[in-house]
Amino acid sequence: MAEENTRSLDIAELIRRHPAEIAEILAALREEEAVELLRRLYLRRAAAAPLGEMEPEEAARLLAELNREDAAHILSHMEPDDAVDLLAELPPETVRDILSRLETQEAKELGELLSYPPDTAGGLMSTEVVALPADMTAEEAIRELRARAEEAETVYYAYVVDDRGTLLGVLSLRDLVLARPTTPLRQIMNADAVTLPVTMDVEEVAHLFDKYNFLALPVVDENRKLLGIVTIDDVIDVIREEATEDVLRLGGIPAGEEHPLDPPLSSVRKRLPWMMAYILLDLAIVAVVAHFEQTIAQITFVASLMPLIADMSGNVASQALSVAIRGIATGEVQWSDLPHVMRKELLVGILNGLMLGAEIGLITFLLWRKPLFGVVSAVALMGNTIAACFVGGALPYVLKRLRLDPAMVSGPVATTVADITGFFLFLGLATAFLPYLT
Amino acid sequence: MAEENTRSLDIAELIRRHPAEIAEILAALREEEAVELLRRLYLRRAAAAPLGEMEPEEAARLLAELNREDAAHILSHMEPDDAVDLLAELPPETVRDILSRLETQEAKELGELLSYPPDTAGGLMSTEVVALPADMTAEEAIRELRARAEEAETVYYAYVVDDRGTLLGVLSLRDLVLARPTTPLRQIMNADAVTLPVTMDVEEVAHLFDKYNFLALPVVDENRKLLGIVTIDDVIDVIREEATEDVLRLGGIPAGEEHPLDPPLSSVRKRLPWMMAYILLDLAIVAVVAHFEQTIAQITFVASLMPLIADMSGNVASQALSVAIRGIATGEVQWSDLPHVMRKELLVGILNGLMLGAEIGLITFLLWRKPLFGVVSAVALMGNTIAACFVGGALPYVLKRLRLDPAMVSGPVATTVADITGFFLFLGLATAFLPYLT
Repeated sequence: MAEENTRSLDIAELIRRHPAEIAEILAALREEEAVELLRRLYLRRAAAAPLGEMEPEEAARLLAELNREDAAHILSHMEPDDAVDLLAELPPETVRDILSRLETQEAKELGELLSYPPDTAGGLMSTEVVALPADMTAEEAIRELRARAEEAETVYYAYVVDDRGTLLGVLSLRDLVLARPTTPLRQIMNADAVTLPVTMDVEEVAHLFDKYNFLALPVVDENRKLLGIVTIDDVIDVIREEATEDVLRLGGIPAGEEHPLDPPLSSVRKRLPWMMAYILLDLAIVAVVAHFEQTIAQITFVASLMPLIADMSGNVASQALSVAIRGIATGEVQWSDLPHVMRKELLVGILNGLMLGAEIGLITFLLWRKPLFGVVSAVALMGNTIAACFVGGALPYVLKRLRLDPAMVSGPVATTVADITGFFLFLGLATAFLPYLT
Repeated sequence: MAEENTRSLDIAELIRRHPAEIAEILAALREEEAVELLRRLYLRRAAAAPLGEMEPEEAARLLAELNREDAAHILSHMEPDDAVDLLAELPPETVRDILSRLETQEAKELGELLSYPPDTAGGLMSTEVVALPADMTAEEAIRELRARAEEAETVYYAYVVDDRGTLLGVLSLRDLVLARPTTPLRQIMNADAVTLPVTMDVEEVAHLFDKYNFLALPVVDENRKLLGIVTIDDVIDVIREEATEDVLRLGGIPAGEEHPLDPPLSSVRKRLPWMMAYILLDLAIVAVVAHFEQTIAQITFVASLMPLIADMSGNVASQALSVAIRGIATGEVQWSDLPHVMRKELLVGILNGLMLGAEIGLITFLLWRKPLFGVVSAVALMGNTIAACFVGGALPYVLKRLRLDPAMVSGPVATTVADITGFFLFLGLATAFLPYLT
């Protein structure tokens, strides 16, 4: 794909393809080639839809290379929700310049949409929604939908409003088609339909769609005035992005997410600060070990087991952590479930700790033939397993409650607490039984 | 919710709620109470929809407590795709017994659906699809949809077939409504619509829906015979489950996923085997360290830094790993991109390694005031950072290619390779410069 040459692309053939496919080609080309292709698409009036299918960041980079007049023209042909996502990636002055070239009504709508935070229902919605009066008949409504099919985000739902724009009820195209043609909408509409407050968090929006299998939901302000519509395709993107962020933060990469083919320097900027901080956190363990230097000097074989104890803290903690992170993301576990989770993780830690302790105890005994050293290793690994399970499994809920990032912070903290527990037990017991171990 | 008493529930009020909400109540009740409530719902003919909204595993547990006649009756009122998911959780003899109580046609349909692997388009689809002849008019088609609105999985799409059931084209309700009433379907339908082969992997199905924003797609066999329909709500479940599995496997919990409130013993069974295996993997590091026991005996302060090196291997590897896992899940990175990814991760490893090495070198120097020990620590941490980045970032693609689980295996392997690199450098250099360090 990346080798495809723009000049060799048959533009007439290309614009017959699905916009998502054209978007893929644009994304795969080198920037100057992509801009060149975008210009050629624009001349055929086929640039708006593919741009809407691209990642907003990439689309904005390409659009910024066109002259402002052309950029404004393309934006005015995009779905407003996509256009806004793209504008949000551009510098404020560019946005102002582009908006000034649009028709007043369009500029006003986009400006309004831009004012909603991107992680709310308002930031996700499109304003191209079909609003109909309550005394219209089913037949008239279908005719109206037919007329507006081109511009509306979806014709599968229409909304009934009063003359001040207050939402009275929801209609599906299905309801309309199934009703007798002369029935007024007032009698067909669903008056207590689910609505999204414009300020609702996108993750909550995603949960609602997921739970009730909606195709679209209306967005309203505090007076139930209809502002726009959120459709399921936008929500799927949210669910995917949410999952991606979970995975990356769990791995130690913060919100400004990283793609595998990002340039190395951008990856370094995202990864390095956390690792530099983790080293500082680990100094606590350096201090613990340094405290027992005398013991290590006398029975050096204890040192051989230390990396294993450290690795197992991280491994056990990340198991418990990943379960908690998914519990939070899917909304399965509430704050009130915390005592339950704490009891469970403690019990899992004790049981797994017993077994892992037994395993390492046996291995240690076989390697060094010192039963007491086996017992010391077993107790230490049991201790750090319990600490890793308990902290890794419960801390994310506490951090979430405190509005801190559960995934980024819990892993290193749980690992460090488990390490400290493990090394205190391991080196402390070894010191206590020193005469019998040498 | 869990404290709600079934007897106090007003059943008449309850069945007016959305099935997804009744499902939540059923899931929150203790088993005997849930079964009792299910019986009462059944008497009001309101048991099928809520069961379809529950996790198949939980729904099957409740259904198994009813008598077989009632169970069969409820199943026959569920959407076939939900019914099959539920049946797949029951023992084969129970399934046979229940199917024998259904009407022949229903039993045959469910039996067929059961024969498709659950992770294919066939396992995801519903058979309740509206198939219409090509010479029917738009008006007749709408009338037909109206008549079948109750049973069909969606009325937003209808499919045009010939008399042998071969798919000729796809129609949306939107197309039907927008067409002149007397137009034959042949002229409205989209003849080269996207179809799902019955054997297509569900993850590929999810990518298609995600890319093209479809609401539903038809499933066909190798002769283009129409078998069923996959709707977007089923796909959202797949996307969510996929994301959950990624997070859990990245954390070290295999495919049979774990919920935060699962009983402790079930969690132990899922987590323990991997940890017991990881310990064995870590024995490689024990061997490396043991090899340098003499050095540690002479300069014990090197031991203080060992847990830090081990922890950093895990931390750096999991950053690179999480980026790779998301690249695989979203399909952003192909096998052919591997050289690019390898170059990038190597470069990121070198840059991050330089910085982290400098940090630890400085800290070491400040703590022990031995410049040479600072250099040794810096080189060691740089070595294991490079190894962790390179192996953690590239190995997942190789494992995926070999059809092994990239998330479960890459983490521990990358950590171990990084540990071995780091400890060899650290203890090896310390040994080489022993005279200058003591």
